Amino acid sequence: MKIKYKLLKQDNNSKARHGIINTNHGSFETPMFMPVGTLANVKTLVPEELKAMNSAIILSNTYHLWLRPGEDVVSKVGGLHKFMNYDGPILTDSGGFQVFSLAKPKDISEDGVKFKSHIDGASLFLTPEKSIEIQNKLDSDIAMSFDECPPASADYKYMKNSIERTLRWAKRGKDVHNNINQSLFGIVQGGAYKDLREFSAKKTVELDFDGYSIGGVANDGESKEDMYNAIDYSIPYLPEDKPRYLMGVGEPIDIIEGVIRGIDMFDCVLPTRIARHGNAFTRDGKINLRNLKYKEDFTPIEDNCDCYTCTHYTKSYIRHLLISKEQLAGRLLSIHNIRFLIKLTEDLRCAIDNDNILEFKEEFIKKYNKKK
Amino acid sequence: MKIKYKLLKQDNNSKARHGIINTNHGSFETPMFMPVGTLANVKTLVPEELKAMNSAIILSNTYHLWLRPGEDVVSKVGGLHKFMNYDGPILTDSGGFQVFSLAKPKDISEDGVKFKSHIDGASLFLTPEKSIEIQNKLDSDIAMSFDECPPASADYKYMKNSIERTLRWAKRGKDVHNNINQSLFGIVQGGAYKDLREFSAKKTVELDFDGYSIGGVANDGESKEDMYNAIDYSIPYLPEDKPRYLMGVGEPIDIIEGVIRGIDMFDCVLPTRIARHGNAFTRDGKINLRNLKYKEDFTPIEDNCDCYTCTHYTKSYIRHLLISKEQLAGRLLSIHNIRFLIKLTEDLRCAIDNDNILEFKEEFIKKYNKKK
Repeated sequence: MKIKYKLLKQDNNSKARHGIINTNHGSFETPMFMPVGTLANVKTLVPEELKAMNSAIILSNTYHLWLRPGEDVVSKVGGLHKFMNYDGPILTDSGGFQVFSLAKPKDISEDGVKFKSHIDGASLFLTPEKSIEIQNKLDSDIAMSFDECPPASADYKYMKNSIERTLRWAKRGKDVHNNINQSLFGIVQGGAYKDLREFSAKKTVELDFDGYSIGGVANDGESKEDMYNAIDYSIPYLPEDKPRYLMGVGEPIDIIEGVIRGIDMFDCVLPTRIARHGNAFTRDGKINLRNLKYKEDFTPIEDNCDCYTCTHYTKSYIRHLLISKEQLAGRLLSIHNIRFLIKLTEDLRCAIDNDNILEFKEEFIKKYNKKK
Repeated sequence: MKIKYKLLKQDNNSKARHGIINTNHGSFETPMFMPVGTLANVKTLVPEELKAMNSAIILSNTYHLWLRPGEDVVSKVGGLHKFMNYDGPILTDSGGFQVFSLAKPKDISEDGVKFKSHIDGASLFLTPEKSIEIQNKLDSDIAMSFDECPPASADYKYMKNSIERTLRWAKRGKDVHNNINQSLFGIVQGGAYKDLREFSAKKTVELDFDGYSIGGVANDGESKEDMYNAIDYSIPYLPEDKPRYLMGVGEPIDIIEGVIRGIDMFDCVLPTRIARHGNAFTRDGKINLRNLKYKEDFTPIEDNCDCYTCTHYTKSYIRHLLISKEQLAGRLLSIHNIRFLIKLTEDLRCAIDNDNILEFKEEFIKKYNKKK
């Protein structure tokens, strides 16, 4: 069965929408933030912890799983859900973003991308067909089309050629996709160029995917303005009965801006990555728990946070774990940070239901950006 | 309230004994293995996980907590239990072992030990009084006397002087101990010398502690024979109504041999340390999950193990996490390895109840040492 999107409530004052997506592994409401489980685990965490923080769908990386342990190992045990013992919905990306960001290929042809493994330097070749074949074997609930992710600095001519090739790649991938239980999303590219975003969106929709994502907004180099424009340029051409996914975005304010512009799904390594460096999201902005001022602060990261970390541990304890280089620190901060973004999407759904998302945004930003 | 030991069953064929110890944070049966939470956490794990594996008491390190975060921080929040949000019994060591093994002091005097911090090289001075003062503030359920841990290679004369000084240190520590809710253990030293072990045991018991431990068996250099002899030389002089604790021992076979010789409590970093290197205890001996042969092994580490790891994940998945350097691997292996040792002590208690611990040992060793 393919996924199915149902609109529950359209915001009266913006493009924001509260919906629900049914999958073969349960349904989840949108807008929704997806924690990233690059290598078939959300770093340091187990599925029970994700469920406890109301996480509904995770993202896993095709490129990484292709290299390790290999899609055939995952397929042999019955797919990614069985392999990692996670029974909720899983989205896999196409590998494209990782190939372009980690392996920095010099050799992009019509056929595909030649590059060197970031692990051992081995020569590899990824094509649209191969990406889909791997994802078919991983048996995720949602697969992504293989796309080129050109840098933000790409000129108009390069970008135009790139999105045209990405469209041909999307078609080739769709043609070989053969997992009836897996949905397939198309990806809109086009950088900061309005007409290219429009062209890419229209042509991608013509190919008729189960959902659409907006890519090329979270490489290095894009400004927030570029990101918001890319959404505004693309959204009008995406069908209302399909989910829209903004790839690689996880800053709280960007999630809010994305939702207001009509985005349903987000993913980002940010909450787990900043956790490893001792940072925590709070409604009053990001804080670093290594700070000396927390040495004897026996209050939780956030008083009113319902996550496991905030209901069990103090800033003083987490600081101690960080200073002592104990891995548990990263685990506890990951729990808080992921829960923070999931709670944010819960609050956004509530704001949509109450038609007050613009007030919510204003208040959130004022508090979040307040000088501390 | 001080801890209280009650004998439940004396084995008919050995010195092994099944008992129960009451503490201010609950009671636990012995023999018991104590996981090590050096820096106020059992590496990568939370208290709920320890409880789920039937862990009943943990050990935490005075030396490490003295340096980070400092005993005053812990004391301010109400002690170690509150600081790390763990409501079970906690034993703290004296810091002695860490000072001698990590800081390798050159300057041991009657007063105490001068050494350099292993973190920043700062000059530090630890005395019996200071060790007890720190432990009083940490407010553990059981504190240990400050002792010298001479190397296995120490000659008779050095060892004799050392245990005599350790006895004076034990007395000084006991004199300043002033936490009525904390029990205090004495430590028997004496290396591989029978008469020194006897002397140390008798004189330590004369000081009248709440329990006794046998130290100096898990430095570098002691043979298994030395360890078993040290127990045999000491045990006859320890009172039957007090717990006996063999410090730093966690090899399964050593735990069995210790129990048979009359030991009640064990601690060791082994299960978490080997976990970080990909190793797992099994009844068929230690295995390394990095081994290629587990790449497509979709069975748990042990079929009949009841731990969270074995009931949820395969060898193939754990191998993948290890090869991918994911921290979750260490967490899952720590859970299995700690549960393995705790289950071993549960089985030993059962064997004592059934008077068949010698058969249990023979069978266990045959299986554990079988060439694979």
